[in-house]
Amino acid sequence: MCDFDFGPLEAAYDYDAIKAAISRDILRSRKRRMWRYRELLPIDGEPTIGTQVGFTPLVRADRLAKKLGVRTLWIKNDTVNYPTLSFKDRVVSVALNRAKELGFTTVACASTGNLANSVAANAASAGLKSYVLIPADLEQGKVLGSLVYGTNVIGIHGAYDQVNRLCSEIAGKYGWGFVNVNLRPYYAEGSKTMGFEICDQLDWRIPRHTVVPMASGSLLTKIHKSYNELIKVGIVDSTPFSVHGAQATGCAPISHAMKRGTDIVKPVPKPETIVKSLAIGTPADGYYAIHAMRDTGGSCEDASDAEVVEGIQWLAEYAGIFAETAGGVTVASAKKLIESGKIPHDEEVVLCITGHGLKTQEAVVGKCGEPRLIKPSLREFEEQIYAKDTAAA
Amino acid sequence: MCDFDFGPLEAAYDYDAIKAAISRDILRSRKRRMWRYRELLPIDGEPTIGTQVGFTPLVRADRLAKKLGVRTLWIKNDTVNYPTLSFKDRVVSVALNRAKELGFTTVACASTGNLANSVAANAASAGLKSYVLIPADLEQGKVLGSLVYGTNVIGIHGAYDQVNRLCSEIAGKYGWGFVNVNLRPYYAEGSKTMGFEICDQLDWRIPRHTVVPMASGSLLTKIHKSYNELIKVGIVDSTPFSVHGAQATGCAPISHAMKRGTDIVKPVPKPETIVKSLAIGTPADGYYAIHAMRDTGGSCEDASDAEVVEGIQWLAEYAGIFAETAGGVTVASAKKLIESGKIPHDEEVVLCITGHGLKTQEAVVGKCGEPRLIKPSLREFEEQIYAKDTAAA
Repeated sequence: MCDFDFGPLEAAYDYDAIKAAISRDILRSRKRRMWRYRELLPIDGEPTIGTQVGFTPLVRADRLAKKLGVRTLWIKNDTVNYPTLSFKDRVVSVALNRAKELGFTTVACASTGNLANSVAANAASAGLKSYVLIPADLEQGKVLGSLVYGTNVIGIHGAYDQVNRLCSEIAGKYGWGFVNVNLRPYYAEGSKTMGFEICDQLDWRIPRHTVVPMASGSLLTKIHKSYNELIKVGIVDSTPFSVHGAQATGCAPISHAMKRGTDIVKPVPKPETIVKSLAIGTPADGYYAIHAMRDTGGSCEDASDAEVVEGIQWLAEYAGIFAETAGGVTVASAKKLIESGKIPHDEEVVLCITGHGLKTQEAVVGKCGEPRLIKPSLREFEEQIYAKDTAAA
Repeated sequence: MCDFDFGPLEAAYDYDAIKAAISRDILRSRKRRMWRYRELLPIDGEPTIGTQVGFTPLVRADRLAKKLGVRTLWIKNDTVNYPTLSFKDRVVSVALNRAKELGFTTVACASTGNLANSVAANAASAGLKSYVLIPADLEQGKVLGSLVYGTNVIGIHGAYDQVNRLCSEIAGKYGWGFVNVNLRPYYAEGSKTMGFEICDQLDWRIPRHTVVPMASGSLLTKIHKSYNELIKVGIVDSTPFSVHGAQATGCAPISHAMKRGTDIVKPVPKPETIVKSLAIGTPADGYYAIHAMRDTGGSCEDASDAEVVEGIQWLAEYAGIFAETAGGVTVASAKKLIESGKIPHDEEVVLCITGHGLKTQEAVVGKCGEPRLIKPSLREFEEQIYAKDTAAA
C-alpha cells in the first residue's frame, strides 16, 4: 500500500511486482505516449481510447529563465497535448478506458472547460454518448471546444462547486460514468503521467522544483505521487525535490491555507478571477496538496488577474508558448517564489503548463497591442512602420 | 539532382550519399521530432530553433472512415503541432535555423495567419526580432496568436497576394529574412517532414492515397517529393501512391485548372471564402502541384463554405479532432473524392489536417448548437434535460 493512499477509493498497486517487471530500458522501448507507464495506471487491459495522448514536449526555456532570474527553467508543455490541448486528456483517457471496461455507454463530467473539451472529444472518437456540465459563463473557446464534438453541453447558472454537486446527484441516480465523480479514482491517476514524463524527459531524474497550478489540488498531489512512485519502483534515485502550488488570488483557498500555516482549507464561496479553469472554491484535494507541498519543502503562491496576464505574456514573449490563464498563474507564481528565494536562483525548476491560450482569448484580447494597419504599399510601410521603428530603436 | 528540382532555388541533395548514411534503424534510433530526417533538410548544423517540432500523431479514425465510406482512414494531426498548432511550425523551424546560420537578426513573413503565429512564436523563443504581415481581416485567434508573442503585426488592407507582393519589395530592400520570400527554398523543404513522418508512422510504407489542402500548393508538392525521396534513399519500397489536392471553392485556382485539364492556373483576384488560410489567388506552386497530382493519378476537389463547416463537424464528431477551416476543406474534399470513386472505397487514405479549430472559431460559432442552460438543480436537470433526451432517444 502506498504512502499516498488517501482512502478506500485510491487505486492500489503492487510496487514490488512492478519494480521487478519494469526497468528504464523496458520503459524506453515503448512508444512515447502516456501509456508507457501503464503498470502504474489503473486500467486492466490495453488502452483503446486516447492511445496517442501525452509525451508533450519538455522545453528548456533559457530566455524565460533569465527573465525570472533562475538558473534552469523547463516548461512541461501540455498546451499541445493530443487531442484537446490540455493535461485533461491524460485523466480522461484513463477514465474512459476504465468506463469502457466497466460497461458504461454514457460518460459525463463537471468541468470548468478543459475537462469538458476532453470528454467530448475522446467520447466522440470512441463512439460513446456524452454530457458535459459547465458553469454557464465559460469562455467561448471552451464552450465551442465542447459543442463541436456533438456532445450535450449543459450550462449551469452557478459556480463550479454547484455544478459539481449537481453531478454527484446525477451520478448517484443514473448509470452514467462521470469521469470526475464516480470514476474519479481512475481519472485522478492519469495526472501522474505528467510527472512520469518529466522525469523520463530529464533522463530519469526528479527535478529539484516543480510548480503546479491548483484547482482541486489533484494535479499537484498526483505529480508528487508520481515522483515517489518512480523512486519506489527503482526507476529514479531518491533526490531532494520540492513541489510548489500556484493559484489565482481571486480563488486561492489552498494558497491562503498554506500562508496561514494550516491544512484546513476555507472554501471560497464566490470565486472572482479571470482564471475560470482554476476557480474551484471547495478544492477536493486541497488537504492532500498542502501536505504534499509541506512534506517536500514546497511553497505556494497566488497571482492577481493583472499578474496572470503578464505571466501569459512573459511565457509567450520569452519562451514562444501561448498558454491559457492557468499558465499565467503558474508563471506569475513561479516569479514570486523565485523572488522570495523559496525557489533559489541557482537551482532548476519545471513549470507545468496545462492548457492552450486559444481557449481563453478573452483574458488577453486588447492587452497585447493591436495590428498596425497600412495599405499594401511599400511607401506606407516605409513611412508608417519602418521609419518609426528605426527611429524608436 | 532530383526529379523535382524546379529551379535554381531548390535545395539539392546527394541522395547516394544519404542512402549510404541512413537506414530505418538509424532513423528510428533518433528522437521522434521532424529533425529525425535531417539529412533530407537544408540546414548545415544541428538545429537550435524548433527542436521539438513535429511527430504529431497519425490517428486511425475508424468511425470517420465508416462515415466517409472508405476502408481505412488516417488523420495526420498537425492541429497539435508544437508550438503553434499548425504544420507551419515545420517550415518555420527550417527557415529560422537557416536564417540564423545566414546571420539574419530580423525575420518576417507574409501570412494568412498560421505562418505568422509560427514565426512570432519561434522568433520569440530564439530571441529574434520579427515582423508578420497579414491581411487586415483575419480571424481573431490568428491575430491574437501572433500579437501575444510580442511580434510586430502589420495588417494590410488587401488580399494575401497583395501582402505577398509587398513583402517581396521589402525583402528586396532591407536585410530581413522573410521565411517565405528570400528564405523560401529552405522554408518549403520543411513541409516534407509531414510526408516522412506519415511513412515512418505507417512502419515505413507510403499510403495509397493522401489528401492535402492547397493554398500555394507547396505542401502538396513537398509531400509528393518526400515520398519519392524516401524511395530514392531506400527507406520505403516504391509502391503505387496518389496525392490528391483540396481547395475552398471560393478560391480554387488549382482545383479549377485540374478540372479543366490544364496546368495553367488562372488567378482568383478576389477570394471569397471563410477559409482564409487557403485564400491565395495566385498560388506560387500551383503548376507543380498539378503535375504532382497528375503524375501520381491523383485528383482534386474543392468545398463550399457550408461543406467546409460540415467537414469540420464530421472530423470532430467522428474522430474527436477539432480542425480549422482548412481541415474542413480536406475532409469535405475527401468525401467527394471517395463518392466519385477517385479514392476507391476499399483502399486506404491519409488526410493531412494542418491547423487547429480554435484559430478559426468564427467559422463554426452558432453552427454546432448552443449549451442548454439550467439552474443547479437535479429537478431542472431531470425535467429539462434527462426527460427530454430520454423521450427523444
